[in-house]
Amino acid sequence: MSQAPLRVLGIDPGGFVAGWGLVQQLGNKLSLGSCGTIRPPRGDDFPKRLRALHEGLRVILEESKPDVVAVESVFFAKHPRAALQLGHVRGVLLLAAAQCDLEIFEYPPATVKKAVTGNGRASKEQVRQMVAMLLGSEIKGAADKSDALAVAICHAHSGGFLSKLKKLDPGPRARRSRSRGTK
Amino acid sequence: MSQAPLRVLGIDPGGFVAGWGLVQQLGNKLSLGSCGTIRPPRGDDFPKRLRALHEGLRVILEESKPDVVAVESVFFAKHPRAALQLGHVRGVLLLAAAQCDLEIFEYPPATVKKAVTGNGRASKEQVRQMVAMLLGSEIKGAADKSDALAVAICHAHSGGFLSKLKKLDPGPRARRSRSRGTK
Repeated sequence: MSQAPLRVLGIDPGGFVAGWGLVQQLGNKLSLGSCGTIRPPRGDDFPKRLRALHEGLRVILEESKPDVVAVESVFFAKHPRAALQLGHVRGVLLLAAAQCDLEIFEYPPATVKKAVTGNGRASKEQVRQMVAMLLGSEIKGAADKSDALAVAICHAHSGGFLSKLKKLDPGPRARRSRSRGTK
Repeated sequence: MSQAPLRVLGIDPGGFVAGWGLVQQLGNKLSLGSCGTIRPPRGDDFPKRLRALHEGLRVILEESKPDVVAVESVFFAKHPRAALQLGHVRGVLLLAAAQCDLEIFEYPPATVKKAVTGNGRASKEQVRQMVAMLLGSEIKGAADKSDALAVAICHAHSGGFLSKLKKLDPGPRARRSRSRGTK
């Protein structure tokens, strides 16, 4: 009996752009669906950029029809201003997924790197190379795409345990210790 | 010849709820349109709460038909985590306004307080009392409503000069100095 692959859409929100990548999983086999970057026009004001990011992801969700969405939990920027800007962008992207009734899973950056390269402190280039190897497909262009595919691969590998986004991520340290204490 | 009043919707985004208030301005006369609080169910996970806040504001925008939207620029929280959470909520609210093709104006908290009470360091209770006096109507319940009405009044008083949200607010200090330098 043939089984449909699990379709995982990884999203990598940035301050101004968002990478995305669809990974298909069938048993232990992973393959690349598609990937890209949502890049609002640079001259647009901030609310228009938020709108473009939200609309862009809505289109991608409709076209790629994922079963679940995976996103990195936030790396806490030292500056509240950077956290605030990333929060706006991440908010409208999570909203797009929630509007499609998709479950959203999140993983700390170090967990994503470890899942893909075996090293929680791997460089972006190492992540890109391993993503390409694991999916058997070259990933050209911006790191946003390979980072988005990496978090999708991380979800595929983990089976989504302990990671559903219930509330705003308290950060890797807080969550790890809580998971150890309660699970 | 009769003139239609300017309808200003003030929004007060919080970490979990959002206050809103519609102020009508005709010449120097201000009046209360309506006001309320969008309060997603407490048990919902974070993406669902973002969805409820966004949908709630979309309904209010459709019903209240404002000409413009006014929002406080962000008071920079000391903690990136608080800034991040507020950023998510603010992002989906700004998105709702942008989706209705509304111009969004923003004002630093001290400017709002000064516009309403004459004192940039007024308490929430002082703001509430002055909002009620200026609008000739008692404002019952949560401070979110009077805070939202206060930023709408601030916009009505200022005429919206120098305040259109072009990009993420750099904070009162940065903007004041830039405004002095260039305008």
